[in-house]
Amino acid sequence: MKLSLTQENLSKALASVGRVVSTRASLPVLSHVLLATDGNRLRLSATNLEIGINYWIGSKVEEQGAVTVPARLVSEFVSSLPHSTIELSAEDAILVVKAPNYESKINGIAAEEFPEIPTITADPVLQVEASALREALVQVVVAASADEARPVLAGVYLYTEEDNLYLVATDSYRLAEKRLPLAKVPDEELKVIVPARTMQELMRLLADVTEPVELYMDENQVMWRLGDIELVSRLIEGQFPPYRGILPEQAETSFEIDVSEFMRITKVASLFARESAGSVKLEVQAEGQVRVVSGDTEVGGNTSAADCEVSGDDAVVSLNARYLTDALGVMKSQVVMFATSGKDKACVLSPAGEEAADDYLHIIMPLRT
Amino acid sequence: MKLSLTQENLSKALASVGRVVSTRASLPVLSHVLLATDGNRLRLSATNLEIGINYWIGSKVEEQGAVTVPARLVSEFVSSLPHSTIELSAEDAILVVKAPNYESKINGIAAEEFPEIPTITADPVLQVEASALREALVQVVVAASADEARPVLAGVYLYTEEDNLYLVATDSYRLAEKRLPLAKVPDEELKVIVPARTMQELMRLLADVTEPVELYMDENQVMWRLGDIELVSRLIEGQFPPYRGILPEQAETSFEIDVSEFMRITKVASLFARESAGSVKLEVQAEGQVRVVSGDTEVGGNTSAADCEVSGDDAVVSLNARYLTDALGVMKSQVVMFATSGKDKACVLSPAGEEAADDYLHIIMPLRT
Repeated sequence: MKLSLTQENLSKALASVGRVVSTRASLPVLSHVLLATDGNRLRLSATNLEIGINYWIGSKVEEQGAVTVPARLVSEFVSSLPHSTIELSAEDAILVVKAPNYESKINGIAAEEFPEIPTITADPVLQVEASALREALVQVVVAASADEARPVLAGVYLYTEEDNLYLVATDSYRLAEKRLPLAKVPDEELKVIVPARTMQELMRLLADVTEPVELYMDENQVMWRLGDIELVSRLIEGQFPPYRGILPEQAETSFEIDVSEFMRITKVASLFARESAGSVKLEVQAEGQVRVVSGDTEVGGNTSAADCEVSGDDAVVSLNARYLTDALGVMKSQVVMFATSGKDKACVLSPAGEEAADDYLHIIMPLRT
Repeated sequence: MKLSLTQENLSKALASVGRVVSTRASLPVLSHVLLATDGNRLRLSATNLEIGINYWIGSKVEEQGAVTVPARLVSEFVSSLPHSTIELSAEDAILVVKAPNYESKINGIAAEEFPEIPTITADPVLQVEASALREALVQVVVAASADEARPVLAGVYLYTEEDNLYLVATDSYRLAEKRLPLAKVPDEELKVIVPARTMQELMRLLADVTEPVELYMDENQVMWRLGDIELVSRLIEGQFPPYRGILPEQAETSFEIDVSEFMRITKVASLFARESAGSVKLEVQAEGQVRVVSGDTEVGGNTSAADCEVSGDDAVVSLNARYLTDALGVMKSQVVMFATSGKDKACVLSPAGEEAADDYLHIIMPLRT
């Protein structure tokens, strides 16, 4: 193998690919990145056996070949180099990296030992705008469970309905649903649960992408194509909870409030809610105020208030402050509507104010008190 | 106690004072901050029994009094409040904090249980410019030992000689010495070892100070006065190593190099020096190049080079890469001179180039190879 390419391109690709490698040392080659020539491009690949990534970059290839090297070392090394042309060559599983004034040998593992990253050759199921997808993922992934005990809850449920793509996640205490309008009705109906970790990687990769993104699918996996990047992921088996039933039809009390103001009073109150596992009480007053009350715990207590526009009667509901700040943290609109139908019923946060889109719901189950 | 003051002033003071509290829960009151009126000012105090701090802020005092409250909670709470006037009142060791729309009760401990923070009433020993002192501390503290096994090495040695204040620290592998010219010869000779932790706190406090800083001293402690702040610290007993003897008189080989260039090639080489505990080899070539060589270890090896101006013969010396990057990281000049007198002799880094001051030495002991 022998080729040359720019430090900038190689460094960026290694940073993206390197996040997918396995950190468990059970199989050393999984902590490596595969560098393989592919015509006049270099393909970088990494996998942790759940997620796989292929990343192509343009380069001047003089001699075809492939090698795997430790992902972290090569990534740190290349990112430390000054901007310049870098020459890569490999023989006997040793990669030699040369830049003006710098020369390294990195001991690798033969490319043959690297697991193949599957690809999907079928037609794409759908196409979606990169920045819209990224924003949707930010708003939804926050509600997925970090716990693998119930696998479907550690995933993001993707399904199409007419010309809409829905993304949903829930950890059973809260739920986020985002609707993304598609340019056309997909030929094939989509209904899959993708690991939240895959979606987090996708989110990061999307930050640099401007062109539309394509989703491919077969029985066991999905693949996202982002220009010269392919991200392949296994699916989560099982049935996503039928969540539509818990969405309240009509709210008894609702209020509209500035998102940052609501965030601030919740955060302040939460400082006093550590002993009570984050439990705070929302007191909505019909005359136009919401109060977040925490304590009386051992450390003390707090009441923080803000003005708002209330529809309906006075209401009181207890919530986990972190779920509330998480939800407010991913609101895109400047104003949010908070709706409650009694202290045992799901609370609903949705975008409000002028120009707010009707495409996002964030549900939080209240705490029993 | 009853008083009012601005959120900005209180928040800033709590952040500074809060860093000194003890994090060990052996004596709960040591994790508290004391709030005590003092005429028309509020005094905030904290101590971990090694370092103590008193911080006065202007306030409108209506009723004298004092209380202690958990430092972390009150600091986080006040910093989360919007800019406004804050009203503090206390009764029965409960602090009530009121701001428009916010009200908190914080359960405290009676002020009587708070240990007294000693003060020194003698005349100041010396006065020094705040920003110069801060810079000196940044350049010296880095060489102090993080290990308390030999207490004197976990301190900064301060002494005066004529109209100079010297600051010195060493962990026995490297040593940093800074000379600060004083406006006048001190009446009394200074010769103390102050814990490096105290100096780190002082460094942080100095970031906000513009007026000259005064040093006070008695048998067991020193006190720095920074405007309305007093930082008191115990001293470290013992004899600082007689370090002047290890400073080489004349270098066999020396070179001048751009600090950031030297930093970059050292960092790159150090990526390959993890298995060898950071050991890299410096190869100085009389024709005008320095090479940093690491490896051949299991991961591979690296050679990084940079041009420089060499005086003397070729030379080779092995160093811990981290000590070298630490030293380069605190160099103020753009160019550094590196001097070596053979592979067993101390290496000396000092400011070089036009306008470089002759006030700083950083010594690194080579590694045996």
